[in-house]
Amino acid sequence: MTKKWVYLFHEGRADMRMLLGGKGANLAEMTNIGLPVPPGFTITTEVCREYQKTKQLDPEVIEQVNAALTALEQQTGKKFGDPRNPLLVSVRSGAPISMPGMMDTVLNLGLNDETVVAMAELTGNERFAWDSYRRFIQMFSNVVLGIELHNFEAILEAHKKRNGFTQDIELQAEHFKAIVPEYKAVVEKHTGKPFPMDPREQLMAAIRAVFESWDNPRAQVYRKINKISDDLGTAVNVQAMAFGNMGDDSATGVCFTRNPNSGAKEFYGEYLPNAQGEDVVAGIRTPYPIAHLKETMPEVYQQLFDLCELLESHYKDMQDIEFTVERGKLYMLQCRAGKRTPIASIKIAVDLVKEGKISKEQAVLRVDPEQINNILHPAIDPKAKLDILAKGLAASPGAATGMCVFDPDRAAKLAGEGHKVILVRPETSPDDIHGMVVAQGILTSRGGMTSHAAIVSRGMGKPCVVGCEAIKVDLEAREFRVNGRVVKEGEVISIDGATGNVIYGEVPVVDPELSPEFRTLLSWADEIRTMGVRANADTPIDAAKAREFGAEGIGLCRTEHMFGQGGHHPERMAVAREMILAETTEERMVALEKLQEMQRQDFYEIFKAMNPFPVTIRLLDPPLHEFLPDAEDLAIEVAIMRERGETGSELQEKEALLKKVRALAEMNPMLGFRGCRLGMIYPEIYEMQVRAIFEAAAQCNKEGMVVEPEIMHPLVSIVTEFSFLREMTDRIAREVMEKHGVTFKYMVGTMIEVPRAAVTADEIAEHAQFFSFGTNDLTQTTFGFSRDDAEGKFLAQYVEQKVLPENPFVTIDRKGVGKMVEIACELGRKVRPDIKLGVCGEHGGDPSSIEFFQSCGLTYVSCSPYRVPVARLAAAQAAARAKGERATSSTV
Amino acid sequence: MTKKWVYLFHEGRADMRMLLGGKGANLAEMTNIGLPVPPGFTITTEVCREYQKTKQLDPEVIEQVNAALTALEQQTGKKFGDPRNPLLVSVRSGAPISMPGMMDTVLNLGLNDETVVAMAELTGNERFAWDSYRRFIQMFSNVVLGIELHNFEAILEAHKKRNGFTQDIELQAEHFKAIVPEYKAVVEKHTGKPFPMDPREQLMAAIRAVFESWDNPRAQVYRKINKISDDLGTAVNVQAMAFGNMGDDSATGVCFTRNPNSGAKEFYGEYLPNAQGEDVVAGIRTPYPIAHLKETMPEVYQQLFDLCELLESHYKDMQDIEFTVERGKLYMLQCRAGKRTPIASIKIAVDLVKEGKISKEQAVLRVDPEQINNILHPAIDPKAKLDILAKGLAASPGAATGMCVFDPDRAAKLAGEGHKVILVRPETSPDDIHGMVVAQGILTSRGGMTSHAAIVSRGMGKPCVVGCEAIKVDLEAREFRVNGRVVKEGEVISIDGATGNVIYGEVPVVDPELSPEFRTLLSWADEIRTMGVRANADTPIDAAKAREFGAEGIGLCRTEHMFGQGGHHPERMAVAREMILAETTEERMVALEKLQEMQRQDFYEIFKAMNPFPVTIRLLDPPLHEFLPDAEDLAIEVAIMRERGETGSELQEKEALLKKVRALAEMNPMLGFRGCRLGMIYPEIYEMQVRAIFEAAAQCNKEGMVVEPEIMHPLVSIVTEFSFLREMTDRIAREVMEKHGVTFKYMVGTMIEVPRAAVTADEIAEHAQFFSFGTNDLTQTTFGFSRDDAEGKFLAQYVEQKVLPENPFVTIDRKGVGKMVEIACELGRKVRPDIKLGVCGEHGGDPSSIEFFQSCGLTYVSCSPYRVPVARLAAAQAAARAKGERATSSTV
Repeated sequence: MTKKWVYLFHEGRADMRMLLGGKGANLAEMTNIGLPVPPGFTITTEVCREYQKTKQLDPEVIEQVNAALTALEQQTGKKFGDPRNPLLVSVRSGAPISMPGMMDTVLNLGLNDETVVAMAELTGNERFAWDSYRRFIQMFSNVVLGIELHNFEAILEAHKKRNGFTQDIELQAEHFKAIVPEYKAVVEKHTGKPFPMDPREQLMAAIRAVFESWDNPRAQVYRKINKISDDLGTAVNVQAMAFGNMGDDSATGVCFTRNPNSGAKEFYGEYLPNAQGEDVVAGIRTPYPIAHLKETMPEVYQQLFDLCELLESHYKDMQDIEFTVERGKLYMLQCRAGKRTPIASIKIAVDLVKEGKISKEQAVLRVDPEQINNILHPAIDPKAKLDILAKGLAASPGAATGMCVFDPDRAAKLAGEGHKVILVRPETSPDDIHGMVVAQGILTSRGGMTSHAAIVSRGMGKPCVVGCEAIKVDLEAREFRVNGRVVKEGEVISIDGATGNVIYGEVPVVDPELSPEFRTLLSWADEIRTMGVRANADTPIDAAKAREFGAEGIGLCRTEHMFGQGGHHPERMAVAREMILAETTEERMVALEKLQEMQRQDFYEIFKAMNPFPVTIRLLDPPLHEFLPDAEDLAIEVAIMRERGETGSELQEKEALLKKVRALAEMNPMLGFRGCRLGMIYPEIYEMQVRAIFEAAAQCNKEGMVVEPEIMHPLVSIVTEFSFLREMTDRIAREVMEKHGVTFKYMVGTMIEVPRAAVTADEIAEHAQFFSFGTNDLTQTTFGFSRDDAEGKFLAQYVEQKVLPENPFVTIDRKGVGKMVEIACELGRKVRPDIKLGVCGEHGGDPSSIEFFQSCGLTYVSCSPYRVPVARLAAAQAAARAKGERATSSTV
Repeated sequence: MTKKWVYLFHEGRADMRMLLGGKGANLAEMTNIGLPVPPGFTITTEVCREYQKTKQLDPEVIEQVNAALTALEQQTGKKFGDPRNPLLVSVRSGAPISMPGMMDTVLNLGLNDETVVAMAELTGNERFAWDSYRRFIQMFSNVVLGIELHNFEAILEAHKKRNGFTQDIELQAEHFKAIVPEYKAVVEKHTGKPFPMDPREQLMAAIRAVFESWDNPRAQVYRKINKISDDLGTAVNVQAMAFGNMGDDSATGVCFTRNPNSGAKEFYGEYLPNAQGEDVVAGIRTPYPIAHLKETMPEVYQQLFDLCELLESHYKDMQDIEFTVERGKLYMLQCRAGKRTPIASIKIAVDLVKEGKISKEQAVLRVDPEQINNILHPAIDPKAKLDILAKGLAASPGAATGMCVFDPDRAAKLAGEGHKVILVRPETSPDDIHGMVVAQGILTSRGGMTSHAAIVSRGMGKPCVVGCEAIKVDLEAREFRVNGRVVKEGEVISIDGATGNVIYGEVPVVDPELSPEFRTLLSWADEIRTMGVRANADTPIDAAKAREFGAEGIGLCRTEHMFGQGGHHPERMAVAREMILAETTEERMVALEKLQEMQRQDFYEIFKAMNPFPVTIRLLDPPLHEFLPDAEDLAIEVAIMRERGETGSELQEKEALLKKVRALAEMNPMLGFRGCRLGMIYPEIYEMQVRAIFEAAAQCNKEGMVVEPEIMHPLVSIVTEFSFLREMTDRIAREVMEKHGVTFKYMVGTMIEVPRAAVTADEIAEHAQFFSFGTNDLTQTTFGFSRDDAEGKFLAQYVEQKVLPENPFVTIDRKGVGKMVEIACELGRKVRPDIKLGVCGEHGGDPSSIEFFQSCGLTYVSCSPYRVPVARLAAAQAAARAKGERATSSTV
């Protein structure tokens, strides 16, 4: 038995999208519902996949196409090439996932020197017939034969000029009759062969061209951007033409069953009378709003309106519909779930639930979590006129305006004086944090979506544009150059973190609307999801933000800044250095006591802000040299002072400091003396932190708050590290409780962030009450990738060349890093079935990763406060999918 | 039923060593063979383990001790505390693994004011009885009551002085009678109680004291050094005393059934007449050689000789025997496998096979692979008098003499002039390699057993002493200071890499003897082992060495030096820089072509040297910045030139170079742009290397050699990396074969050195023909330890504090890193059952790790040439143990 390669429309169904493509499946469905669809057939995506291998159409496929054509001729009563009643068809691509405008289309196929005459007679419209013919030659020659359009446009322009016309509409039948031979001459000149007159030859060539277009460069790029597999292939739809350009009783248009911008339940769309679809797209004539059709063709309007209602009810989603009116008769050419803005997406989903059309689960599954990320931030007024300087990567959403500043110290100074600033750097480093904190937004000329600037900005919820390579930053001159313009420090620019635009001057901004529908949708998400959502927050301010966005606790409270890292507390940096440079334990203790009191206060404030939610505190993690000046800078200073012949105490101090800095310097700090290794070698540092936490907890307890600190020891790789630290933690808890005469609950757990911790998780779980996966570091160690180095040097190219499907620092690598997570979960639960399992790497806010964590059975995910709504929605989707729910409609 | 806590000697057996300790098991065995052993009983190690928990003797234990005592009284016909015929006993420790001198012993227990009189009467030797009594008080008080010895020595000295004596032997019975009350007074003063007169009280206290001594500091240290578990515990042996000090017909001594230094089959030992064992140990009197006994007590000598023969035949190993002659009657007090030198160890094992006493497997199992490492290198003549300056860590065995030189350039210069040099540095780095290559040996004041200096030296088989902290190196002054002495450049020193000694001046050296027995033993090892042994060798010279030591191929040929790394080829470094700094692919190709011809020649020479053995070649692995100058040095140079107001082209060039160096600089080079990532981003580099390899192979092939290069792509973490590189490799192989019209075999495989490669090994094995475990890097990534940083900053302390049982860079961490190896082996074999599996990390030469690799079923191990004999032996032991063989005798 031979395979079925070709389906007549009535042979297909909506759920055959993978085989027939989205368009083909919908045409089939519409046909079967009984809508007025011009008849036709679909050549399957399987044929495309075969074609990509052989670059040929199988004889069997050709045979089936011919049979379908015969059926089509019977349905329409017309015949291909019939000089009396010719059949004309459109040939369109249609992939399983919509790729609008990316692949090729041929309309009016079947016209030739004979059928054009027949068409003129049949329609009584000679101009229409000859215009259609010359359009067909032009389109076919371009799409199928690869002849550039300007060859034809030049001829058209010459005719218009010769006749003194300015618009195409002024050309008449006689002009087109004169144009056609000239067009055909172009074809013969370019191909060495005359334009094909045989409609079947035209058809087969057009089909092949559509299959070829699957691999054209713009389609490849589109698929890469939209993460669509190259293996899907496209179907080809061959459909009898309906003509919207047969006179004033004809029209063509597009409509939506709801407003795709606002989501409002209203009939929305536009159309052009006496036109073909491409005229609407070309934008030469301004279309009428759909309401206008009610006035000119009230019956057609009513029929269209009713059919649209029917379609929405059928598909249970807002539909995007293409229609044509041919001499008063309505044809539905296409329908699909309509693309929509994030706001509309939410409103439509919520309204459909309220209208009883879909379930809450469906509503939650209909909204793309990544998309809603953008509406959680202020945005540039879409109506504003912008002086766009350049475009970079949209690294962190939101709009920001301020004066350009090129170094973090200046930024801090100017912001201190009340100025709004945009920090502009080639790229950022931890040394720039104090400048980033005070800036309205960050702009860098280098770096990718996961560069330091991008990550930190997203964490801060601050707008950021990175990798804007058109901008040449000159730090010394305090200016940047872009396309011949110079922008100096103090000049005002704006950045749009949602689009990547860099704009000269101030821009009007609109505030984010947390619409009632959005709140409703998130509340449904909270009902559906099974994983908790916490936030990564280091300060009471972050904690408050996290609660506002619906976080149910803090999953990662880093304590680095409590030692002065990040420039928030310069006075603490001094004490931290005192501690690090101490020569004796006694000296170190003096500094630690000062830090203890400061940190106790910090923890107290955070507990208060999160009361009664849990707070997971990670003890000091970075290597100590991060708190000291840079070795190279210091070495240069010393070298220059020596060169100048200086000998004073300043030189000696600097030399002594340099010696210490060198002693603490590391070849690979990421794998060095950090995390719990600090706590093992200098137990007094961790003891100080643990005491500060418990002292704060005791205070909260006395004040009647509910507090249950979760103390997290980072970078554990050996069970003995953890058992030592667990004992220490328990001992100090006892001491503090006894001292204050109170009792409070607490937990002691560890990060799982190196592979050894994952594969020995059973041993560790004997002592640890919870695991939190630090998937950033786990990705680094599992791959052997240093994030700082990989992203600039080879990772972008790896993703580009598909060595890796995605950046594993953005979306978790399931096969490798994910395997480690799975192993650790399994081993951990084996010895401690109720072990609490969370994730606090950046993956905690990434929807695809969240789906993976759901499959691992994690207790919660934790992410930056601004991504909490995204995570709530993504977690609900993951839970719904885990129960077998699938989105019943999709715009992607 | 109650547990058996106490065993009479005749109730035990030799194989009950874990329960009865080594000494107890041997006493039991000797008793059962029918040797004249003074009767006694053993309290088990289980009691010790209980005691460590409760610090008490269980009443049941006390009951069983009393019962055993009654049996002992019946056997000897003597009674504890009997004023007519008193029983005296010794109380000795005896752990399952010998810890000589580490724990406590009490002799003559049972003496008191009454029994001393009985002893005097029974022996007719009053002096002996009272001397024994005062010795007992002294020993008991020290060991059991914790009173320091000097309290008693002072009394003894006072009596000698008063009588004008200089030696103890001059003291007579009356003197000891006077001394005893004074001794007892000391006890009463220190403990507030009189010296215990009840022998049973004495016994229980002594038993407790022995158990206590299991945890004394020196025993703890001994166990740590010898890697003996703290959980074993010691047994206690209570044995009727035999007195070697009952007059001239008494004696005590130690003998060996073969010479423990040379291994020669000769009766060897020494004894003291009229003495107790402690007198031999104390070294005050010079003992007689055992042959002398033949003259003084011919019958006893003959009995002893016969019994020793019997014991050796029984135990099938050289025995170390303690004996006592009490008034003409021979008692055997102890026997155990004798400690021996490495040379003796080998000779005895081989001789025992030849004598038909043990199998080849047993012989192989009897020799400690680590021990033989030392005899593969020249050693300092043990008879030489040495002026020892200091002692560091013995990092790489062998002796070396030469003039001190403090920088590698000077070392290269002086060596070029024909001087022998010792390179002395605070620590070494890759920049020092050219100095290390020319040096006779390396001495560093910092760093541990796995520091750069240690690793590189071991790799070169060059003597090395590291971490010699007593030495203060002053690089500027070109000298070092040690204990007030100054040693300047040019002065001659020697280092002993087997002991860690640093010696002033030249020392006489003896060459290593690869004795015929050693060769025989290794040939047996080769018969027994199932894993191959290859060497890590980068040059034809290394390859030749590797063959000499029995390597069956090269498991790792690094190609870094072929780009000039390590200072061997400065001219290549220039070309490599040309390649790295190239602005265009064309420029890069010019440099690569030069390198290709150089490398082709290198590979040709290596193939020739190893013909017909296989050679595994690892393509370029280190990050490119390792071939460029240090950024900080360069930055300082530039800063100083600017400070001086220079503006010339030299400054500009340096600035340009600095910019490139900075662009290539990395935060964590270990996890950065290196390994196959270089080959992915700059395919032309790997293509050049692959072409050079195949061109060399083609040449060998034409010359009739057998060559099968194994091309190894390093640092693969993603299957797509490998599949890309595999295709490239196959393509170039085809091209080269076609070009030369030849065919040769080759293999393409990968290193497994990051966890992701291990957990996705099934995917990788679909393309890879072999895996080679790079366990150095795999240890770094699995733990998240940077070796460079960890060893100096926390790893030593981790091992010290038992956070880790051993340094995982020396002995593979089975639970974590080993798990990765197991996972990869399993996944790899699943898809490619015949996959070749090797290891080329340093663990390939470590006996414990080799045993693990045997259990994983690896095809071969690869290690530095000098460790090949160690690996051959260790692999044979692993294979024998895998078949269930256990060493039937052990000196450890």
